[in-house]
Amino acid sequence: MQPSGTLDWNVYRRGAFEEARHVLEGVAHRTPVVQCRTLSEHAGCDLSLKCENLQRAGAFKFRGAYYMMSTLSKEERKRGVITYSSGNHAQAVALAARMFDTRAVVVMPDDAVGVKLAATRTYGAEVLQQGRTPQERKARAEVLAREGGLTMVPGYEDPRILLGQGTTLIEILAQAPKVEVLLVPVGGGGLLGGICAAARAYRPGLTVYGVEPEIADDWARSIEAGNIVSIESADTIADGLRSLEPGEIPFPVVREVVQGIIRVSENEIREAMHLLLSRAKLVVEPSGAVATAAALFHNEPFRGRQVVALLSGGNVDLGKLFE
Amino acid sequence: MQPSGTLDWNVYRRGAFEEARHVLEGVAHRTPVVQCRTLSEHAGCDLSLKCENLQRAGAFKFRGAYYMMSTLSKEERKRGVITYSSGNHAQAVALAARMFDTRAVVVMPDDAVGVKLAATRTYGAEVLQQGRTPQERKARAEVLAREGGLTMVPGYEDPRILLGQGTTLIEILAQAPKVEVLLVPVGGGGLLGGICAAARAYRPGLTVYGVEPEIADDWARSIEAGNIVSIESADTIADGLRSLEPGEIPFPVVREVVQGIIRVSENEIREAMHLLLSRAKLVVEPSGAVATAAALFHNEPFRGRQVVALLSGGNVDLGKLFE
Repeated sequence: MQPSGTLDWNVYRRGAFEEARHVLEGVAHRTPVVQCRTLSEHAGCDLSLKCENLQRAGAFKFRGAYYMMSTLSKEERKRGVITYSSGNHAQAVALAARMFDTRAVVVMPDDAVGVKLAATRTYGAEVLQQGRTPQERKARAEVLAREGGLTMVPGYEDPRILLGQGTTLIEILAQAPKVEVLLVPVGGGGLLGGICAAARAYRPGLTVYGVEPEIADDWARSIEAGNIVSIESADTIADGLRSLEPGEIPFPVVREVVQGIIRVSENEIREAMHLLLSRAKLVVEPSGAVATAAALFHNEPFRGRQVVALLSGGNVDLGKLFE
Repeated sequence: MQPSGTLDWNVYRRGAFEEARHVLEGVAHRTPVVQCRTLSEHAGCDLSLKCENLQRAGAFKFRGAYYMMSTLSKEERKRGVITYSSGNHAQAVALAARMFDTRAVVVMPDDAVGVKLAATRTYGAEVLQQGRTPQERKARAEVLAREGGLTMVPGYEDPRILLGQGTTLIEILAQAPKVEVLLVPVGGGGLLGGICAAARAYRPGLTVYGVEPEIADDWARSIEAGNIVSIESADTIADGLRSLEPGEIPFPVVREVVQGIIRVSENEIREAMHLLLSRAKLVVEPSGAVATAAALFHNEPFRGRQVVALLSGGNVDLGKLFE
């Protein structure tokens, strides 16, 4: 792992992204960019939506997980992979492992939602439950990795994960070449880090904002401080964005490229989800709707401009949509 | 109007479709074709979805309405247009009229759903309510058309409507060039007629099926009989497919091209809607889900083949989705 604070941009050169894109071609979906006039009118800008909720396993996570696994040696792949996650990353690793015919172990929380456990098992992963905090799960996964010779596929603490997620930007630039402003949900930072690194390589003039819940604003505080700051709690409905601090690998990448981090309220997230459903006809999970919420409710910096909001995932318990 | 039973294929030559496509370029959305592996596994074929639920005003109807209005004379457009519809066609006509800065009158049923009345008014149309049957609304609209010099924009009884809807096929052939089988919802027949005519012009080898609710099977009976047959009732949840008999303009076009009409049950429609929501992350109305239902539950004729199911619309009362 790169030491905290150091950053070798050569890792994120165009050639590296091209390799990731090549590996993912025909494997990951090239998800569509769609327009919705009603949302554009609400937002006061020319708003398009990059639909990673339509990605395989329902979220952008598949890109990084699959790409990282493609770089493992034959021997490593034979032994298998492991990760700790309660959500979309678990499903992505499970699916990618199935495609590589590799063993996958996923450590999930004791109180994991039944539907997510089931989905991860459906893809063929071995699911273990351990504790309620990410720290407990991470510790257990690290022990299991050592004991079983399994390779850890982290959610965001590896440059290969960022390279995979960054391929999303390459597609956006081809699909919406006039884009001026990009709005990206940020939890641990794998997606935002990958997008920022790819923007630096492909379109340095692009304005990139991260977006997170205001009650889980570890990234906003950290970017404002210029270094990693932890928060105490992150009790947001956006279950994919409950990180308590930015990842060490993505943080320096984001810090150098990002225009800023926009905070959105819980009600703004709910309203964005409902407008996406009723007007854009798209199922988007709370974490996936924060960028749209920023476009709708915090649009001062980009009124009248060409904006793409990234819909990062669609894995939501449908029964809860109308609570 | 062409006399029943006669059909001039020259009306549906490539050049006519090209003109419609040219008019709609940059005006209608080029909606995406997306893939969903889970649905493909269920269906036992390589299934893609053409997302006209993401079209402007939420359904394919905008294509035909806008294209037909583009062909009116300056004088006709100055006087305005009229239609009778309770659903997606009303919204499409209202939106297109607003874009042409034309007066639009829409005759809707006495018991029209509040949300559809509101949506049609939002686009600026004058809404009148008259009776509960299409016959009553049609009669009222024809009187109003004569009195006010308004041009009737019918839902499917005009070749220009078919030309507009047929542009959907041109996009599909570019987006999914290997398509072998196309599944298309059929109510009055504007969409299926347009698709069949375009298939004949662009890809005569394409296998096209119409799909309708088994309790509203006017098209299946008519195609089987070789001539237009009326049914007594059509009390299906697919509110856009409640036609009691095929349209006279589309019928001879469809009869000559279509492979057959597939009937789906009400429960199959509901299950398709829910799988589209939960797995494909797409909001699709009951009428829009019938083609997917055919792929999932009546796939014998096209197992293992390259299939596109057309999602015709997404205008559903979200509160009713989970009843």
